[in-house]
Amino acid sequence: MESGIRMWIVGTVGIDTITTRNGRFEKQLGGSVTYAGAASSFFTKVGSVGVVGNDFPDAFMERYLKLGMDVAGIQFEQGPTFSWEGVYEADMVNRRTIRTDLGVLENFAPQLPESYRDAPFVLLGNINPDLQLHLLDQARGARFVAVDSMDLWINCARDKLVEVIGRSHLVTLNDSEARQLTGCFNLRHCAAALFDMGVEYVLIKKGEHGALLFSRDGLAIIPAYPVQEVRDPTGAGDTYAGAFMGYLAEHDAVDTPTLRQALLHASAVAAYGVEDMSTTRLEGLTRADIDSRARELRAMTAL
Amino acid sequence: MESGIRMWIVGTVGIDTITTRNGRFEKQLGGSVTYAGAASSFFTKVGSVGVVGNDFPDAFMERYLKLGMDVAGIQFEQGPTFSWEGVYEADMVNRRTIRTDLGVLENFAPQLPESYRDAPFVLLGNINPDLQLHLLDQARGARFVAVDSMDLWINCARDKLVEVIGRSHLVTLNDSEARQLTGCFNLRHCAAALFDMGVEYVLIKKGEHGALLFSRDGLAIIPAYPVQEVRDPTGAGDTYAGAFMGYLAEHDAVDTPTLRQALLHASAVAAYGVEDMSTTRLEGLTRADIDSRARELRAMTAL
Repeated sequence: MESGIRMWIVGTVGIDTITTRNGRFEKQLGGSVTYAGAASSFFTKVGSVGVVGNDFPDAFMERYLKLGMDVAGIQFEQGPTFSWEGVYEADMVNRRTIRTDLGVLENFAPQLPESYRDAPFVLLGNINPDLQLHLLDQARGARFVAVDSMDLWINCARDKLVEVIGRSHLVTLNDSEARQLTGCFNLRHCAAALFDMGVEYVLIKKGEHGALLFSRDGLAIIPAYPVQEVRDPTGAGDTYAGAFMGYLAEHDAVDTPTLRQALLHASAVAAYGVEDMSTTRLEGLTRADIDSRARELRAMTAL
Repeated sequence: MESGIRMWIVGTVGIDTITTRNGRFEKQLGGSVTYAGAASSFFTKVGSVGVVGNDFPDAFMERYLKLGMDVAGIQFEQGPTFSWEGVYEADMVNRRTIRTDLGVLENFAPQLPESYRDAPFVLLGNINPDLQLHLLDQARGARFVAVDSMDLWINCARDKLVEVIGRSHLVTLNDSEARQLTGCFNLRHCAAALFDMGVEYVLIKKGEHGALLFSRDGLAIIPAYPVQEVRDPTGAGDTYAGAFMGYLAEHDAVDTPTLRQALLHASAVAAYGVEDMSTTRLEGLTRADIDSRARELRAMTAL
C-alpha cells in the first residue's frame, strides 16, 4: 500500500441549494462523499470516488485538497454536477426535496484508482447500489466494508441494495430508512432483519437522538452531542458514517472498544458539522477540537 | 419521622381507557400518582396524595398496597374517579385524547397527611398547579422538590405553573412540553429559560430517546433502554420521574453520581413499565430486576 490510502469512499458530489430559517443558500458544496470524506480526513488518509461536471468550481476541489482528501477517484465529465435543493422546516430536522438533478451522475461508470485497491476500509456512501456493487468488485484489499443508503434506493433498487448489504460487514441507515427497508418498526427488530441480510454490524443513526450499533453480541448506544445551534443538518448522516469509519481505519481495528470510541468521535464530528453550512465548520476544525468534544460527550454520558 | 415516609407524590388517580394496535383496554388503573408511586415504591417508602371516587375498585387500592405505597393521602369522595381515554398510533408514541372526565378531581382540596409532612423528598406530579402549590405550603420538611406538568396546565395555568417551578429544585417535562412552556426549540435554550424561572435542575424526558438532566454545572445524558415491544406507553414519563426521585430518596442525596444513577435506574424502570398495560409489569418486578436492567443499560453506554 505505497499510496498510503487506508480507506476510500464512494458517493455523490453535489452542488446544493439549501433553505433554512436563516435564508436560502445557493451553490453549497455537498454530496455524500463530500461530507463523509471531510469527516474521515481527520483520522485517516482517505480516497474519494465520485463524479463532477464542468460547472464544478476549482475552489470546491481545493477544499477537498485542503482537508487532505485524495481526489484521484474523482472523475470529471462534460455536463452539470449532481445537484439537490431542499427546504428545512423550523425544527431543522424535517425537510422536503425541491429538486434533484442527476447531471453527470446519470452515466457515471466509476473506476477505482489503482492506489485505492488495497485499502482495507471501504465506505460505500449513499449512491446508486449498482455503482456500489461495481466498485466493491474492484476492492481487492477490502477487509471492512460499510454501506450507507437512502429512501430513494430502498424504493427503486431494493434488491440491489440488499445484495450490497449482504456483501458488506456493516450497514448504516437512519431510523426511518431502517424501518422502510425492513418493514419493522421497533429498531431491535429492524436490526434483526438487517442481520438476516448477511451483515455483521447494524449502525442506526437517529440524528439529534444519537445512534445505536447492533452487533451479534450486543448493543452500543451513543447519544448525540447537544448542539447549541443547528445551521445546516445536510449530510450529518454521511458525516457520522465517514468519521466512524475513519476512526476504525486510523486504529486498524473493529473490536468492541474501538467501535465504541468510533461512535463517540463520530458524534463529536457530526455535531460540529451541523453548526455551519456545507462542510465549512469541518474545514475549520483540528483533531484536538474533535477529541475535546468527544471527551465532553463522554463526560455527559458517564455513569 | 416516625412514619418512615421519605417521599410523597401528589398527582391524578385515573381509570383509563387505552386503545393501542393490540385492542381497546377499559378500566385501566392510571394517573400520575399511580405510575410515579409504583415506580418509586422499589426505592423508598412513598406516600400518595390524590383523590378517588366511589367507583374506584377495591382491587385498585389493593394494588397500591401490594406495591408498598402508603395511601393515607388518598381521599375518597362521592362521584366518579378522574378518567382519561386515549388512542395510540401504530408508532406507540403519538396519541390523541378522546375524553378527559375530571370527576372528583374538580373539587379536590388535598390535605397533606401529618405523617408525610416531614418527608425530605417531594414529587409534585402532573396535576393542577394550584393543588401543587397548596400542598407545597404544607410540606414543612421538604428538602428536594421536583415538579412535573403537562400541556394542559402550560396552556391554561401557565403563571401558576411558573410559580411552582420557582419554588421547586427540579422541573421535569418532556421535550415538547419544555418547548411549549419556554417558547424555545433547542433543548439547551429550553433549559436556560427554565433555570431563569428559579429552578436548579431541569430533567427533560424524550421517551424512547432517553433523557437529559441539566444542572448549573453540566449536563448528563442517559439513553432509553431499548424495549423489545411497547404495549402501553401511558404514564412512562410519570414512571420515569417517580423512579428518579425514589432513587434519590433511597440514597438521601442529590450529588452528581447519585443523580446519574437515578437517571439510569429511572430508564430501567420506565422501560419495564411500557411492556404491559397500566402498572401491571411494574407490579411483577423485583428490585433485582431493576438493577439487572440498569446494569445492562450501563454496559450499552460504556465508553
